[in-house]
Amino acid sequence: MASAPPKLYSYWRSTTSYRVRAALNLKGVAYLTEPVDLLAGRQHDDRYISLNPGKGVPTLVLDDGTILTQSMAILDFIEANWPDPPLLPNDSVDRAHVLAAAHTVAIDVHPVNNLRVVRHLQDSIGVDADTAKAWMQHWILEGFEAFETLVSDRTVFAFGDAPDLADLCLVAQTYNAHRWGVDLAPFPNIARIEAACLAVPAIAAAHPDKQPDAQ
Amino acid sequence: MASAPPKLYSYWRSTTSYRVRAALNLKGVAYLTEPVDLLAGRQHDDRYISLNPGKGVPTLVLDDGTILTQSMAILDFIEANWPDPPLLPNDSVDRAHVLAAAHTVAIDVHPVNNLRVVRHLQDSIGVDADTAKAWMQHWILEGFEAFETLVSDRTVFAFGDAPDLADLCLVAQTYNAHRWGVDLAPFPNIARIEAACLAVPAIAAAHPDKQPDAQ
Repeated sequence: MASAPPKLYSYWRSTTSYRVRAALNLKGVAYLTEPVDLLAGRQHDDRYISLNPGKGVPTLVLDDGTILTQSMAILDFIEANWPDPPLLPNDSVDRAHVLAAAHTVAIDVHPVNNLRVVRHLQDSIGVDADTAKAWMQHWILEGFEAFETLVSDRTVFAFGDAPDLADLCLVAQTYNAHRWGVDLAPFPNIARIEAACLAVPAIAAAHPDKQPDAQ
Repeated sequence: MASAPPKLYSYWRSTTSYRVRAALNLKGVAYLTEPVDLLAGRQHDDRYISLNPGKGVPTLVLDDGTILTQSMAILDFIEANWPDPPLLPNDSVDRAHVLAAAHTVAIDVHPVNNLRVVRHLQDSIGVDADTAKAWMQHWILEGFEAFETLVSDRTVFAFGDAPDLADLCLVAQTYNAHRWGVDLAPFPNIARIEAACLAVPAIAAAHPDKQPDAQ
């Protein structure tokens, strides 16, 4: 693999950046953080769009210039190139169940609550701050209700005794849940998984508050 | 693999159902269609929620009772169990590029335009039909602008001379684009890929209008 560390273009509060940071940390992959200030609109700069036409974070740039976008595609690449410790089971049914739980966050919750979507709601549709907050909470609650039933209640993490892709997507989204005032009390599995994840130093180091661009 | 055909709980107009149908058809996997009438709210029935806690389509149920949810996780399972013809390249960088293009549709466009999101916009936020239509068009256009630059302009399909996962996600979303009045003229790659996909009988057979629950 790459001899110089890859660069991760990311934003401290982005849950997609958080999940990729956690995976790199768990696998012991050194990387450089290149902050992209989403609030200041840096994702719309021509230079950044040339890396990431979707104008999102994260983007992973390898030392040979290879550009990887979309967090779940980046995580697939990370898993293929740094397989240890694994974030997905080998058995295809077990793997599909982990992916389904991960996608309940990564597809059903995150994209609908993305900064660009909330901004569009406010700027183009004209909803007020309270309605935007209710929007965030609604989709987090819908997704967490499904996630809660898809995971095990007999393991440390979502499906076993080590963190997997579902755990990483979940712990990043719990950060967002707290930020938007969602109570995790109705979700004992989610609360347990969050605590287990944050007790892992590699995951704790990926937390937004630990990033160089944290404010 | 399963000896009796799997059951695909799906909805004719659902783009996530369309992409899974196309993959099963391309790989020659026989399956039974179990229609879930989303407009009538059948995804909220207790019996269906016991299969799919996320209250979405599709759900794939194997003959041994294994339940698979989330279309992209189902597609990963299909690829692992019926590898021929492949929908993803072996090389991890090529694979990440196909996944990134696929996710530009499956993560950046589809979830934000999901029926449940548009209904929530109308029922809870009170937007009118014109605003809902503009919402659909906005996110399709944003995603298509990115997709257009992520794919090749020198191949038949998105990345090569055979359909891959990015093609299947795209062709399903072009159906939605037509439905909501999005002009594909500014996107020559997308228009070319759509035509190439619909010329493949296995993909054409997955089109919404060919489904038993089409109205």
